[in-house]
Amino acid sequence: MAPPLPPAYFLPRALLAEGWARDVLLTCRPDGRIATVAAGMACPPGAVRLPGAALPGLANLHSHAHQRAIAGLGEAAGPGNAGPGNAGPGAAGDSFWSWREAMYRAVAALDPPLFEAVAAQLYVEMLKSGFTTVAEFHYLHHAPDGRPYADPAEMSLRVLAAAATAGIGLTLLPVLYAAGGFGGAPAGPGQRRFVHDIDGFLRLLARLRALTQPAGGQPDGALPGVVLGVAPHSLRAVPPEALAALLAAAPDGPVHIHVAEQPREVADCLAQTGQRPVEWLLAHARPDARWCLVHATHMTGAETAALAASGAVAGLCPTTEANLGDGIFPAEAFLAAGGRFGIGSDSHISVSPVEELRWLEYAQRLATGRRAVLAGGPGRSTGRALFDAALAGGTAASGHGPAGLVAGGRADIVVLDTSHPLLLARDGDALLDSWIFAGNAPLVRHVVAAGRHVVADFRHAAEAAVARRFAAAMTTLAE
Amino acid sequence: MAPPLPPAYFLPRALLAEGWARDVLLTCRPDGRIATVAAGMACPPGAVRLPGAALPGLANLHSHAHQRAIAGLGEAAGPGNAGPGNAGPGAAGDSFWSWREAMYRAVAALDPPLFEAVAAQLYVEMLKSGFTTVAEFHYLHHAPDGRPYADPAEMSLRVLAAAATAGIGLTLLPVLYAAGGFGGAPAGPGQRRFVHDIDGFLRLLARLRALTQPAGGQPDGALPGVVLGVAPHSLRAVPPEALAALLAAAPDGPVHIHVAEQPREVADCLAQTGQRPVEWLLAHARPDARWCLVHATHMTGAETAALAASGAVAGLCPTTEANLGDGIFPAEAFLAAGGRFGIGSDSHISVSPVEELRWLEYAQRLATGRRAVLAGGPGRSTGRALFDAALAGGTAASGHGPAGLVAGGRADIVVLDTSHPLLLARDGDALLDSWIFAGNAPLVRHVVAAGRHVVADFRHAAEAAVARRFAAAMTTLAE
Repeated sequence: MAPPLPPAYFLPRALLAEGWARDVLLTCRPDGRIATVAAGMACPPGAVRLPGAALPGLANLHSHAHQRAIAGLGEAAGPGNAGPGNAGPGAAGDSFWSWREAMYRAVAALDPPLFEAVAAQLYVEMLKSGFTTVAEFHYLHHAPDGRPYADPAEMSLRVLAAAATAGIGLTLLPVLYAAGGFGGAPAGPGQRRFVHDIDGFLRLLARLRALTQPAGGQPDGALPGVVLGVAPHSLRAVPPEALAALLAAAPDGPVHIHVAEQPREVADCLAQTGQRPVEWLLAHARPDARWCLVHATHMTGAETAALAASGAVAGLCPTTEANLGDGIFPAEAFLAAGGRFGIGSDSHISVSPVEELRWLEYAQRLATGRRAVLAGGPGRSTGRALFDAALAGGTAASGHGPAGLVAGGRADIVVLDTSHPLLLARDGDALLDSWIFAGNAPLVRHVVAAGRHVVADFRHAAEAAVARRFAAAMTTLAE
Repeated sequence: MAPPLPPAYFLPRALLAEGWARDVLLTCRPDGRIATVAAGMACPPGAVRLPGAALPGLANLHSHAHQRAIAGLGEAAGPGNAGPGNAGPGAAGDSFWSWREAMYRAVAALDPPLFEAVAAQLYVEMLKSGFTTVAEFHYLHHAPDGRPYADPAEMSLRVLAAAATAGIGLTLLPVLYAAGGFGGAPAGPGQRRFVHDIDGFLRLLARLRALTQPAGGQPDGALPGVVLGVAPHSLRAVPPEALAALLAAAPDGPVHIHVAEQPREVADCLAQTGQRPVEWLLAHARPDARWCLVHATHMTGAETAALAASGAVAGLCPTTEANLGDGIFPAEAFLAAGGRFGIGSDSHISVSPVEELRWLEYAQRLATGRRAVLAGGPGRSTGRALFDAALAGGTAASGHGPAGLVAGGRADIVVLDTSHPLLLARDGDALLDSWIFAGNAPLVRHVVAAGRHVVADFRHAAEAAVARRFAAAMTTLAE
């Protein structure tokens, strides 16, 4: 599907590591990484000229691809909507927990081809919005009856195929889901497609290693653009001994985990362990720079500072966290303590770095009554600060190597349409402020991912075929 | 600019007052209102067929058109961004008040033709997003040096011309801005383009009446689609005696006022009058169903219940209120008390009913930890509840007559693209849930305003010419 690698890209205006530059010539290596990048150049014959404002592509560091199939379908009130906040399963009230039950029901029918069709559509949408890589937190492993497929990696292979079809960079995070709740509670019927014992999971991991890194050791694996990590689902789904076994089997590469998304999870963890989830994780698993703690919404001040000091990346998913009523991440304190973050579209109720970054900042404004809360200092552009942070944190958490348009980094370029009325007469960081904060039009005109020009003039090379397969899948699912 | 009135529209799927219907035939009167509407019809020869999901157009009940020129330009941190919340003018901190000073500086250069170019671009964007009418809270009356133009209605005429160019329905709300702050403080240099004494304002109002309603008495005025109201700017800018004089001179038609947007405004009002702004207004001006209280963010529980009981519409502007760090409107309590609301894009940092309604609900979820907070009861669609409320409240507050696709109502139709991957296999209220909550793509395929088919296949009839004039204006402003 992916078009061939062109000899070079010429970018009349681009955001480089050292700042905004003019007349940038960027050449690619055969592996999709940047060979050379230089400003003040002429456009040589054969180079692909991409007028507009060129940015590095952003990493989407948290995705559950199958949930794209139900985007928008969980917005009706359940019975007894007058219930209290953070009600548990079975309690009255429309909450994260009732949404989760509805999601479990809806995805029961996703077989491997339907799942691949949904994931390919999602990944095309990500590229068109400005995400050039995705970290797939993949837990839909087994058949609907809970039995492993003949190839236990069947569903993982569908993730790999969908990413290849779309041409998006992938961090595959097979998820260990060992229990239905704290204290090793058994998995419920809605969770049987997710569950492994540790031995079964390690077999899956070995199979995925063989698939993605047969020669071992390449930073990107033998499948171009694919990084393999692991994901203990959460402290509620992975008991301490299973977590230890998993970490022993995965001594390097990304480790992602859901943590402290909901107050009830905090209460359950306190009841079970005497510690709050982030507190427990910091004390027992000692997360470092290869870790991504997804959500981390509910933290004390001490947890916030300790997480920042750990070097782990906070995986923020502002639109999903708003849709699910999770709460507001303590971003100002976390950044002030030197914390790193990236963004993810998680449930895919929204698929756009613009909406994630805009509403990350806006939630802080609503909570504090101030503006430019995350700008990081006088005179700084809020849009630039958010973009730089999400680029650095997201790329690091995804294991994709150096961030930004630098030699050795992924050749991931997102070009904004500067002729659009929202970006007219804007230059430098004002382009980022206007892209992130102003209006609602799609402004991503071109996307290059791993050196390939996958979105040209607002259209993805495979979008019509992918949309047709997605339409057929949605019709099947609705039957 | 507007295309001629077709004989009829045929809507294969439409949301009528009685619910979703199939095969709807809708005919228009010469004044742009609906003559007849009936479901289960055949498509007659000559009717314009609009496949997709047809909705009534929404009212945008709060606009400051000139602020479209600076959308995205106010997102850099000011000096001393570490300051406290709700800092007043001159205090350290990036806040509503520092944004307001920046906005005053930026608009100083807007002469009448530049202003008209900006307003026309904005109104085209509104139509393309699904707003078919706009209530323009218009306070940019005078020349940059503060002197009235030769025709004191010069800038108002530009609003009328821009609305006619775009083909959007207009509620023109000339604003009385009589003082710079509570206690009759004099206007500052940034405010001199806004200020009238009451006699000067009443002369402007008389001139606008003659322009829009020469024969007097028509609900829509002699200019098609134009309603004339009045807007006392706020309690800080309109002393009690001026407010009384204004209301005496405007015994009917819409009355809009900014109120309780910022904590400092509440504190100043308390200090000046001993009452909070909404409390004072309810006690002294007795707002009723023709009133729209814009923002009303900071209310006690008693004020919230009393505002709901008054019959006045709350004018909510969630994206601007988030951008400016105003705070979260107590929507759940207000709706539970029977309150009415509409939505406005206000500063136009965003121009989309989707983002306003989505984040109106999401702010409630973030504050409560629950989902479907504004759905209004078990089994109800949140999207439908938000849409219905904003349609009814917005249309009423704008003085545009009966809301929805009913005989006598404005022939304002918004057709969603049901072939888009976000709306596939959706029907009924699930279409509204997916439109409002899912994804980030433009889904408004057709728009009919006052019977005219102004947006066809995602393109506005005048958009290229309007965008050219806007581009020239932005270039001039940037010089």
